[in-house]
Amino acid sequence: MKTLLQEIALLSSIEATLDWDQETYAPPSSVTFRAKQSSHLAGKIHALKTAPSFQEQLQVADLTPANRRELQHQYDRATKLPQELVERASETASLAKAAWMEAREKNDFPTFAPHLEKLLEIAREQADHWGYEEEPYDALLAEYERGAKTSEVATLFDSISSDLAEIAATAVEKSKSIPQDFLYGPAPVANQIILNREVAESLGFDFQSGRIDTTAHPFCTTLGPHDVRLTTRYDENDFLSSLFGVMHETGHGLYEQGLPADDFHLPSGQAVSLGIHESQSRLWENHVGRSEAFWQRWLPRAQELFPHLKKISFEDFMTAINRAAYSAIRVEADEATYDLHILLRFKLERALLSGELEVADIPAAWNETFASFFGFHPQNDAEGCLQDIHWSMGGLGYFATYSLGNINAAQLFHTAMKDTRADFQKGDFIPLLSWMQKQVHAHGSIHFPQDLMIQATGSSTSPEAYLNHLRSRFC
Amino acid sequence: MKTLLQEIALLSSIEATLDWDQETYAPPSSVTFRAKQSSHLAGKIHALKTAPSFQEQLQVADLTPANRRELQHQYDRATKLPQELVERASETASLAKAAWMEAREKNDFPTFAPHLEKLLEIAREQADHWGYEEEPYDALLAEYERGAKTSEVATLFDSISSDLAEIAATAVEKSKSIPQDFLYGPAPVANQIILNREVAESLGFDFQSGRIDTTAHPFCTTLGPHDVRLTTRYDENDFLSSLFGVMHETGHGLYEQGLPADDFHLPSGQAVSLGIHESQSRLWENHVGRSEAFWQRWLPRAQELFPHLKKISFEDFMTAINRAAYSAIRVEADEATYDLHILLRFKLERALLSGELEVADIPAAWNETFASFFGFHPQNDAEGCLQDIHWSMGGLGYFATYSLGNINAAQLFHTAMKDTRADFQKGDFIPLLSWMQKQVHAHGSIHFPQDLMIQATGSSTSPEAYLNHLRSRFC
Repeated sequence: MKTLLQEIALLSSIEATLDWDQETYAPPSSVTFRAKQSSHLAGKIHALKTAPSFQEQLQVADLTPANRRELQHQYDRATKLPQELVERASETASLAKAAWMEAREKNDFPTFAPHLEKLLEIAREQADHWGYEEEPYDALLAEYERGAKTSEVATLFDSISSDLAEIAATAVEKSKSIPQDFLYGPAPVANQIILNREVAESLGFDFQSGRIDTTAHPFCTTLGPHDVRLTTRYDENDFLSSLFGVMHETGHGLYEQGLPADDFHLPSGQAVSLGIHESQSRLWENHVGRSEAFWQRWLPRAQELFPHLKKISFEDFMTAINRAAYSAIRVEADEATYDLHILLRFKLERALLSGELEVADIPAAWNETFASFFGFHPQNDAEGCLQDIHWSMGGLGYFATYSLGNINAAQLFHTAMKDTRADFQKGDFIPLLSWMQKQVHAHGSIHFPQDLMIQATGSSTSPEAYLNHLRSRFC
Repeated sequence: MKTLLQEIALLSSIEATLDWDQETYAPPSSVTFRAKQSSHLAGKIHALKTAPSFQEQLQVADLTPANRRELQHQYDRATKLPQELVERASETASLAKAAWMEAREKNDFPTFAPHLEKLLEIAREQADHWGYEEEPYDALLAEYERGAKTSEVATLFDSISSDLAEIAATAVEKSKSIPQDFLYGPAPVANQIILNREVAESLGFDFQSGRIDTTAHPFCTTLGPHDVRLTTRYDENDFLSSLFGVMHETGHGLYEQGLPADDFHLPSGQAVSLGIHESQSRLWENHVGRSEAFWQRWLPRAQELFPHLKKISFEDFMTAINRAAYSAIRVEADEATYDLHILLRFKLERALLSGELEVADIPAAWNETFASFFGFHPQNDAEGCLQDIHWSMGGLGYFATYSLGNINAAQLFHTAMKDTRADFQKGDFIPLLSWMQKQVHAHGSIHFPQDLMIQATGSSTSPEAYLNHLRSRFC
């Protein structure tokens, strides 16, 4: 079993390396052959994960109960899908992605609609094969959030939606009188690289086992037990957009670097869920990165590197970086308004899966729900229901984890702050990292996400700390 | 067969991608796991190349005679070595490489000697398994230079050794009165990158299918049929060292980019030998890169980027970049003295293989031959017989290809110049590239290197053009 699992880990991390190269440095014409390399590896990995020998070896292998449970779960999910469905899903998603790009460009939902119909049909078939307790959406959500029930997530989201909308409205209203133009100014990439690296290092990111490169869409990927790669992009007039992006990816990276390296090939050495992963990125980006304590340490350094900041008072700077504004676009949303975008998508996805909502009715449903949260309509479908890539890749059931991450982040941060005496003002965040390593990272996938939350904070994911945090920051 | 060969090509190019990443960007702590990934792939590739199914498929596959001949040759060589010997060779080389590094650092040949004894024994065993016509060295040379006979290479080298020594002596003597200090001056890396790229592009290197990165030791590697990666290093006071290095690697890269992409998995789509590969790198580095025609186009641009060059006359510049001086170190040698380093190594390697020279006697033999060529002794073994990494990696039989490359370069360039009307002064080198593509690149490994030379130039590798070139440049 160990050899088989190690081979899967080797091939998967090699595939991740090819992907990383594709996103960062590969020349344009390499793309066709690179796709062949990746698909060859993907085929080998799938074959190993679904081989009868996997099940046979699992029976007799010397494994901890948690590793056995998770490996059995993974094997069951992988083998429950017929080969025909796996191939159809992959082909449909390629075509759908191209159609989605065209549809968004042309602002024409009907171009994408037939593809989304097929993807939805495939998602329902997958859910049927995987099985579920209450509703098909459960089976999809399980891919990202082990042990989560859709109805419980819905209850959680419903319980805070009006609070979130109210906080957002207050924050947006207050922000109208807050200037922030003074944040923008000459920010040479070389200086942004310096600050990003100094900050990531101060949070505990180990550059002996990782690095930061440049890509159009920032991400974090793990190429080995001591090899975590972050990416960012640079706006030469706005150092904060790259810096907060780097702090976000650093949060993901610290989680990956904190996993038990010797168990790299085992569930106990792998991240437990997207909702926990996102809690780590949001924690460092928002709870640390947008706090006064952080900037007491780092504003002077930023002023050295970006002299236009010298004329700004600390108070004005803090107010400006925590300004809120409505946007039709999720990825441009600030902390105060972000979750409304997620609640909208979760509601629609769930209705699509259950059959309550038809694909053709998505634009109307989107605009109606959007208006109820934000008080205005998106200008068109390109900045409405066509804005995200996720559905076109077959990623249904994914969006909820963003808000779960936000809520988990606040809850973990709140508990950690009671347990640790970090001297944030002096820039020392290592005690916070140590707490996360001990309470979250070190456990890999041993516990279900909700059990992990209970162990770490005394309760499952609950919104009090998050709402308190948002209110104290924005209201 | 096609599927099997394509799988080998996919896995080999993936392994090359991992190696490239390791040399360019991988963080230090990734090295242990990366070695596991690489060795896993190497094992898979070796298994595919030596599988009985390879031979079976080869019998029935639809292949051109040349591809069948080369694939059979590769299969025979791979399967002739017992597994035990393959593993012993790999282990011995790892230990030897570490011992060589220590020996060179301590300037202590006896630290390396017992390892070299073992490597030599392995090389003799390999030669016995592979078989040879005249002497064991033939079997090793065949790894790098298909169809070459050691005795013929020796005859060629012997026929020019006194000419080379005489040209070198004349060039070094003349150079004593040539100043070159004015070449050095502030050369910001950003500007070197600009010039390197402009020059590589003007020679025909396709950046849609390739790129240039930074490494401690420059190289060229191919990661796919449309993905050729060059590397260089920068001296911030000497833009020429990077530029000539880039032109050298560009020569390798143009060959790789000129190979038939559709035959990437077949010998007809792969480079034929190191002696031909090196002819391409040397051609662009020395025949083009150190010519007056090239600098009539590029000196004005270099002066824009590196203003300290503005006070130098064109004549002084040309004389300075073609200055010669003796050095104990091969990799620091100039065009006028380089081959003497190779002749020395070839002579010693051949004597070691045949048993005429004992390992313990290498330092004395090295110093004696060196003094006969250069008129002085190396200061110590670290800058003498311990300077090169090749032997420590088991790379016996490799050195000869450097001088074969120099000789081939001159012969190919001389013929191409008669056939083409390139307007070099205007910076147009594409007609020269087109000639090389048609006469050399397009043929892959269809012909043996010497047959390729005969087809392209009317004669097998012969020294006249090279000696003429060196005399006209240095005497």
